[in-house]
Amino acid sequence: MKGQPIFIQEVATRDGFQNEAQFVDTDDKIALVDRLSACGYAKIEVTSFTSPKAIPALRDAEAVMHGIKRIEGVVYTVLVPNTRGAERALSCGVDEVNLVMSVSESHNRTNLRMGREQSFAQLAEVIGVVKQTNVAINVSLSTAMGCPMEGDIAQQEVLSWMQRFAELGVHGVTLCDTTGMAFPSQVGALCLAACERFPTLELTLHFHNTRGMALANTLAALEAGIDRFDASLGGLGGCPYAPGATGNVCTEELVHMLELDGYNTGVNLTELLAASALLPRLIGHDVPSQLLKAGRRMDLHSMPSLASDGRPKQRAFATGA
Amino acid sequence: MKGQPIFIQEVATRDGFQNEAQFVDTDDKIALVDRLSACGYAKIEVTSFTSPKAIPALRDAEAVMHGIKRIEGVVYTVLVPNTRGAERALSCGVDEVNLVMSVSESHNRTNLRMGREQSFAQLAEVIGVVKQTNVAINVSLSTAMGCPMEGDIAQQEVLSWMQRFAELGVHGVTLCDTTGMAFPSQVGALCLAACERFPTLELTLHFHNTRGMALANTLAALEAGIDRFDASLGGLGGCPYAPGATGNVCTEELVHMLELDGYNTGVNLTELLAASALLPRLIGHDVPSQLLKAGRRMDLHSMPSLASDGRPKQRAFATGA
Repeated sequence: MKGQPIFIQEVATRDGFQNEAQFVDTDDKIALVDRLSACGYAKIEVTSFTSPKAIPALRDAEAVMHGIKRIEGVVYTVLVPNTRGAERALSCGVDEVNLVMSVSESHNRTNLRMGREQSFAQLAEVIGVVKQTNVAINVSLSTAMGCPMEGDIAQQEVLSWMQRFAELGVHGVTLCDTTGMAFPSQVGALCLAACERFPTLELTLHFHNTRGMALANTLAALEAGIDRFDASLGGLGGCPYAPGATGNVCTEELVHMLELDGYNTGVNLTELLAASALLPRLIGHDVPSQLLKAGRRMDLHSMPSLASDGRPKQRAFATGA
Repeated sequence: MKGQPIFIQEVATRDGFQNEAQFVDTDDKIALVDRLSACGYAKIEVTSFTSPKAIPALRDAEAVMHGIKRIEGVVYTVLVPNTRGAERALSCGVDEVNLVMSVSESHNRTNLRMGREQSFAQLAEVIGVVKQTNVAINVSLSTAMGCPMEGDIAQQEVLSWMQRFAELGVHGVTLCDTTGMAFPSQVGALCLAACERFPTLELTLHFHNTRGMALANTLAALEAGIDRFDASLGGLGGCPYAPGATGNVCTEELVHMLELDGYNTGVNLTELLAASALLPRLIGHDVPSQLLKAGRRMDLHSMPSLASDGRPKQRAFATGA
């Protein structure tokens, strides 16, 4: 796949920050998005126009959207739960709205406090409003690879929700592995089926690394023809059921692997790592990113200093494999 | 690959413990190996017969080997650096000795304090000794997918070291991604070449998760025909160049993924997780395992309690994807 373009979509300032206890200052959010805009992303999910009471961490959505310097070639998207949110988002001139519901009834009730049909009706209303503009519409389907309460989700269930939204004229659908339940063969089969049935929809895969499989699942999705991935700088974005577990797939780790494998993400990994290094100050704690700790594959080390006999003075590695 | 057997080889008590600052009591080591013996592994690397001065953490190698209850069907292997170590290991009746050297000159000098040719001569001598017994011989080739000082390692370089050891009559070779520099397409190409050129050697892949790619690399190796993997309980086994970064690929995460994908590892994941949960007490700190924190994919949760209006009292998830 040498040189094949892959589209990387950053979600840290939305999916990441919404879970953080420490409020990230509006100016810091704006500075971070501006920095990310220069990194080469296809899309940045800037914030969420949910109720400030429900998600206080993102209560400054308008200020952030108005404050950032938008650059050509990057799609600026925001999460929108209802028509009120859509109106707020549209008034900020967003490029895309991202709607969300779960394909599992239990998760939808838990997360959105309503049944799936009620969610669908609400989102259909939002779609009706947004379609009067030229703003793009994406729908993120949560728990598409498993529900932490119901378990397996039938592929047919996912495809039928995609179908309902496709019929409403959305531009894209994101299949979300909300709590890291996806595994490679499942991902491959679902992606193949989705690509085949919806060849004109813009398909995004949204992985969490809760059980360590995010990059393996990415490989499976790539092989099935997917070329668009959500990812979160530093691996931000926790799972409330797994305190201490990693969150979304880490953008710098995703880009690092894809570029090594010969794909063209268009993302500048050096800039990305520099931006990720700023996160701990913003959120008040370390981030899950392994790459930030270890450095890139080819960030080489010098040999330890040698003693007079030409042998290293100190063993840099424990004897082992 | 439904039902295809995959051989899992545990290295935590050797590659993991050797890097730990806290000495794990001999009795605890024995109890852990005994517990692991019941889990269904193909092989357990119990300890290392290196100089107690070089690796004090494993200074009790004889006591551990004599103390464990070996069970039928599990190969008990140990790391051996030289003939002195080989003699100690043979006196304990090990099933296999595992020799180690690096395919990169710089890493071999740093890790083993001698050049590769000197290492090869020393290991050839060990092989000569061990071949007089019916104990199996494996060679672990470190830095086979990259050297933290030299960078890329040519595939031809790896194959030619394999060739030299194959000519000495070793039974198996382990290709080690010592500092987590491997990436999927590289792994696939190397494994294909190795399988083709050495069809009768027992090939093992040994991944580290330093940059998050261990499970993705596992997928690539599987696709290239590899069926045998080293892994470390809890993800133990740090890289001295990346403090805080994860170590070896985590056994429970590897088994979890493989079983979900339909492979047959023979390993009991429930027992494995129970054993992994003991590690923090033994080593005095948390382990990298995400699976230990998050639980298995199908370890389901109940819905939050409902208020009188039938809606969850508390939002268990932040609104998001």
